[in-house]
Amino acid sequence: MKEFIINNPLDMHLHLRDNDMLKLVAPLSAKTFAGALIMPNLVPPITSKEALLSYKQRIKEASNDNNFETFMTLFFKSDYTFDFLKDIKDDIIGIKLYPAGITTNSEDGVSSMDIEFLRPNLQIMSDLNIPLCVHGETNGFVMDREKEFMPTYEALAKSFPKLKIIMEHITTKEAVLLLDKYDNLYASVTLHHLLITLDDLAGDSLKPHLFCKPIAKRPRDKKALLKAALKAHPKLMFGSDSAPHPKHKKESCGCAAGVFTSPIALQVLTQLFEKHKCLDNLNTFVSLNAQKIYNIKINNKYIKLIKKDFKVPNIYEYKNENVVPMYANETLLWSIKE
Amino acid sequence: MKEFIINNPLDMHLHLRDNDMLKLVAPLSAKTFAGALIMPNLVPPITSKEALLSYKQRIKEASNDNNFETFMTLFFKSDYTFDFLKDIKDDIIGIKLYPAGITTNSEDGVSSMDIEFLRPNLQIMSDLNIPLCVHGETNGFVMDREKEFMPTYEALAKSFPKLKIIMEHITTKEAVLLLDKYDNLYASVTLHHLLITLDDLAGDSLKPHLFCKPIAKRPRDKKALLKAALKAHPKLMFGSDSAPHPKHKKESCGCAAGVFTSPIALQVLTQLFEKHKCLDNLNTFVSLNAQKIYNIKINNKYIKLIKKDFKVPNIYEYKNENVVPMYANETLLWSIKE
Repeated sequence: MKEFIINNPLDMHLHLRDNDMLKLVAPLSAKTFAGALIMPNLVPPITSKEALLSYKQRIKEASNDNNFETFMTLFFKSDYTFDFLKDIKDDIIGIKLYPAGITTNSEDGVSSMDIEFLRPNLQIMSDLNIPLCVHGETNGFVMDREKEFMPTYEALAKSFPKLKIIMEHITTKEAVLLLDKYDNLYASVTLHHLLITLDDLAGDSLKPHLFCKPIAKRPRDKKALLKAALKAHPKLMFGSDSAPHPKHKKESCGCAAGVFTSPIALQVLTQLFEKHKCLDNLNTFVSLNAQKIYNIKINNKYIKLIKKDFKVPNIYEYKNENVVPMYANETLLWSIKE
Repeated sequence: MKEFIINNPLDMHLHLRDNDMLKLVAPLSAKTFAGALIMPNLVPPITSKEALLSYKQRIKEASNDNNFETFMTLFFKSDYTFDFLKDIKDDIIGIKLYPAGITTNSEDGVSSMDIEFLRPNLQIMSDLNIPLCVHGETNGFVMDREKEFMPTYEALAKSFPKLKIIMEHITTKEAVLLLDKYDNLYASVTLHHLLITLDDLAGDSLKPHLFCKPIAKRPRDKKALLKAALKAHPKLMFGSDSAPHPKHKKESCGCAAGVFTSPIALQVLTQLFEKHKCLDNLNTFVSLNAQKIYNIKINNKYIKLIKKDFKVPNIYEYKNENVVPMYANETLLWSIKE
């Protein structure tokens, strides 16, 4: 049976939530990934060392896997001091900036993307060599929000040439093109944005489990993202943005944004890269690029995939929490070898 | 208290369904409209005189209002004969053409929009002076489907200069512009497309009750539609495309397309036209234009609106059927005077 090994797969954009949802999803990520960059948008957001270390410990206990590395992030606030950031520097991999209200639990994000307003903090981050992870969307028309944010990325890249800036979960051709324009711009891309467009969400009937932010865009955008991922563009990392919400919150009016992909991501990526005859690039896309960009070292964790049907569960459950994965009840061509 | 009278309001694009759903929604339309153009996409679709007259009778019984005129349409088939159409001509107001699979119950629609394929039937319709109502969408990317259909509208208009062609439920600036380019092109526009864009469906959380086909487009499109409606563009008619689906089908995965607006349409239109200081044009938009375009006569039915809060019901119910209206549980500024 055909096999494929991924060495140290990394998920560089992950939402693990807290409490029982954390206990449900953390083991699923730990099972197939060697490490993950953990997003800080809890309620309240992670803005102190105490909260950060406590969350890291809760994740460790929930995942119950000593071989799953958590790269923690702090929720960007414009008033962090030099001393605070210097002290916390070794405990974080980056700081995540959200424009206020732009996505789940981002109400405490920045009220303005004005460079001068952000300058003091960004200069400290640049000096301390702390990467800046950005949810890059304006509050404009939903299909234009990322594209409209490009000038802000350009202004950030030009104003802080030594600051590593990661455009998170990019969804447009414009963002892909920007990667090659500024040395200090990097990006993560999700699994689902390599696979779907707005057509999959709303072209036929409406599919709430494919509703996410940024919203899936046009075929031209998907094509550009896929092309960059398949060739393992050195400035592009895999980041699932796997974002669990309970089934009832996805399947009701006012459905929450987020696609849950952690437990199926490697299988689907293997299937996708194999289909496009790019399997040789998968390890670079899903591990080596992130190691280089973030300058991280990681223990060896081999994940072996075998070409054997995998029926995706309808739902994952723990106590009163549950979450429906992408491709629920469908059959994938690759499985994780237990 | 401020009052406003609409004389003979007409809904020139209406889905009444059948059975208990018909019994639920027909009286709601009859209550505020003097007449409506009834869409033929039942299962099976209305393709015979017998089915048409039987449906008209069922609507009459369900609406229980002798002062509610039903203008019936036939479901376009490419093999209708001259004799058949001549015989049915006086019982219909037009024939509705659906590209196959493009919306609810359109599976029996035409497989090709090729003019030569459609020519025999369209020539008969032109000769008999039977208007052609068209669901104008390609099967392309969801945001482009109507725009991509414009060349087909142009080809139809040029090939059959004596055929009245109605672009149904237009949603784009491009369609508005086309109205002024061909004498024989007309259009209907819904209430919801004057009010919402894709942002309302998917810009914040996902709102299944605003999911419709054609999908709501960009702000520029809404602006163009609204401008044409507010000035009562003489080739533009009100057609609600009110399309009831039971609550459970709207609020589940694979949500059906359609917004239910019949019982709130006149109140919201009055509010909208008043807000833009165009109340003087409302009667033309919602009645006179359709009378001229379709050359129809109608009895006098005055609907009196008063400026008094109207709390929209959460749901309308009849036996086991139910439907959630647009603006459910919200308060409108105008009420129908009982």
